[in-house]
Amino acid sequence: MTNLPSSLKISPTEIQNGILRGDRRMLAKGITLVESRRKVDVDSAQKILENVMSNTGNSIRLGISGIPGVGKSTFIETIGLKLIEDGHKVAVLAVDPSSPHSGGSILGDKTRMPELSKRVDAFIRPSATGGTLGGVARQTRESMMLCEAAGYDVILVETVGVGQSEVEVSSMVDFFVLLMLPGAGDSLQGIKKGIIEMADMLIVNKADGDNHQLAKRAKNEYEQALRLVSNKKSQIKLCSALTGDGISEIWKDVNMRLENNKAIGSFKNKRINQQYNWMIKMTEDSILQSFRENSQIKESIVAYKSQLEKGQITPVMASHKLLEIFRKY
Amino acid sequence: MTNLPSSLKISPTEIQNGILRGDRRMLAKGITLVESRRKVDVDSAQKILENVMSNTGNSIRLGISGIPGVGKSTFIETIGLKLIEDGHKVAVLAVDPSSPHSGGSILGDKTRMPELSKRVDAFIRPSATGGTLGGVARQTRESMMLCEAAGYDVILVETVGVGQSEVEVSSMVDFFVLLMLPGAGDSLQGIKKGIIEMADMLIVNKADGDNHQLAKRAKNEYEQALRLVSNKKSQIKLCSALTGDGISEIWKDVNMRLENNKAIGSFKNKRINQQYNWMIKMTEDSILQSFRENSQIKESIVAYKSQLEKGQITPVMASHKLLEIFRKY
Repeated sequence: MTNLPSSLKISPTEIQNGILRGDRRMLAKGITLVESRRKVDVDSAQKILENVMSNTGNSIRLGISGIPGVGKSTFIETIGLKLIEDGHKVAVLAVDPSSPHSGGSILGDKTRMPELSKRVDAFIRPSATGGTLGGVARQTRESMMLCEAAGYDVILVETVGVGQSEVEVSSMVDFFVLLMLPGAGDSLQGIKKGIIEMADMLIVNKADGDNHQLAKRAKNEYEQALRLVSNKKSQIKLCSALTGDGISEIWKDVNMRLENNKAIGSFKNKRINQQYNWMIKMTEDSILQSFRENSQIKESIVAYKSQLEKGQITPVMASHKLLEIFRKY
Repeated sequence: MTNLPSSLKISPTEIQNGILRGDRRMLAKGITLVESRRKVDVDSAQKILENVMSNTGNSIRLGISGIPGVGKSTFIETIGLKLIEDGHKVAVLAVDPSSPHSGGSILGDKTRMPELSKRVDAFIRPSATGGTLGGVARQTRESMMLCEAAGYDVILVETVGVGQSEVEVSSMVDFFVLLMLPGAGDSLQGIKKGIIEMADMLIVNKADGDNHQLAKRAKNEYEQALRLVSNKKSQIKLCSALTGDGISEIWKDVNMRLENNKAIGSFKNKRINQQYNWMIKMTEDSILQSFRENSQIKESIVAYKSQLEKGQITPVMASHKLLEIFRKY
């Protein structure tokens, strides 16, 4: 705590103006503020977000998931380079609360996206480490806004394949794709039904060389299995992130579907619903936190636990008393 | 609402004294109070629970789960009759929030436990209908206390096989068994890993006639599969609820393990932890409910949603404002 974060040497206004200019260094500093838990940083971050709000929202937000080894980094590298060629500016974020104590996440390793990380039109940010999934998700949402304010018009949000992260990511993106492996002979084994239902598109990756036939067969199997487990008509695509085969078609298709969603109004509705749900969830989480961290409540809980042990109070009565105490504070 | 419940024609004190005398009619009326949402009934129920508290807790609480068709009713009938022969008084409760609008649950149909329902030492109560799982779970916990106060020393709590109910039931019983079918060739397919981990004992039912070999093979398969999916050393037993084979051994084993738990103190610890967790959960649920049902909050949420739609506010700012409003009320 003795070293001030370097971002503090620059005023929030400078960071804000830098972001609006598209300065990547300032964007990185802004995200550092968003990830900070220091009161002064939190306040600065909220001030910046408030001021840049009208410059946010103008992007396509694409969530990318899949089990480790499915080729997420290669997929992001390949589609990211294609998008830059098409004239887009691409930001890559990640939600990975699984390794709270590691120094940097999977995406911190730039050797995993060697070409993309060299491009001036790409901004790659490792997932914040430490904190709850809810905290990481909030940081990612806010980082996304800052990236948009800095002119990035495609945001790729990667998630590691650990269940709850997918729920969070799918609730903050416009389109959610799930990468799959060819040759998963037992079809949907190992992939949770719920995650498949969340996906707007399933992509069988590594459909190259000897794997191509295998991938085609997997696609058919997945299609059959999907009819059983999902009510949603998900599309299944083939690609090879390594060779680039199929990537253009996938992007074309994503784009077409999003354009269609915009035309019928569901694109905007989805975003508003996401923001609404986020507002409610954040508020309820804060309320419960203020209950859990209230020192009077903590003391009372210890006392009631001891009374429960002695059979002097029922859980219902203790709960009523806790509610009374909470209402006073 | 024009017909007063018949329980109201009798004073809470009469009901309470009746319960303590072991009067089954009064016990049924007490449970009706516990299940009621009318303020006057809720208050009466809490008063009764408070007064009978020192007479509760002296039972073995056994949770019984398994998919539909596995033979739960027959199992309860057979083990219930055996327990009554052994001199126990047996209460059967159910947690079934899945059919909120039906007139009575699976257990309401006494033809499913034809012998047990005739015995004076058995008390069978259908699951309360309507309300949330949390509400049904609270009612079941409190009904359990009233049954104990009425002298029932074994409480069998049945759950329908629908995921979250099992979590609730396992958090209110001393011992949780999962019934399984023989001949489930693909082992643990269809049974959620989490539920298996919750179970203190797995029982392959219908191990009779031609099924006996099948059941033995299933037991072996389950044992192998369990080594893969579970860290807990669960026991697997065979029985036929229809012929009664294996039921005595199962009860003997349950009893032995609970006696052992009592000797090492884990029986009491588990109950105290269950009560503690229940106290916390009930309180947090109430707090969130008071947020959700606050009319000022409801109005503000509508207003902020409209501001979100117009891009005039961020979810974070709206959340801060909601918290301020909630703190005032």
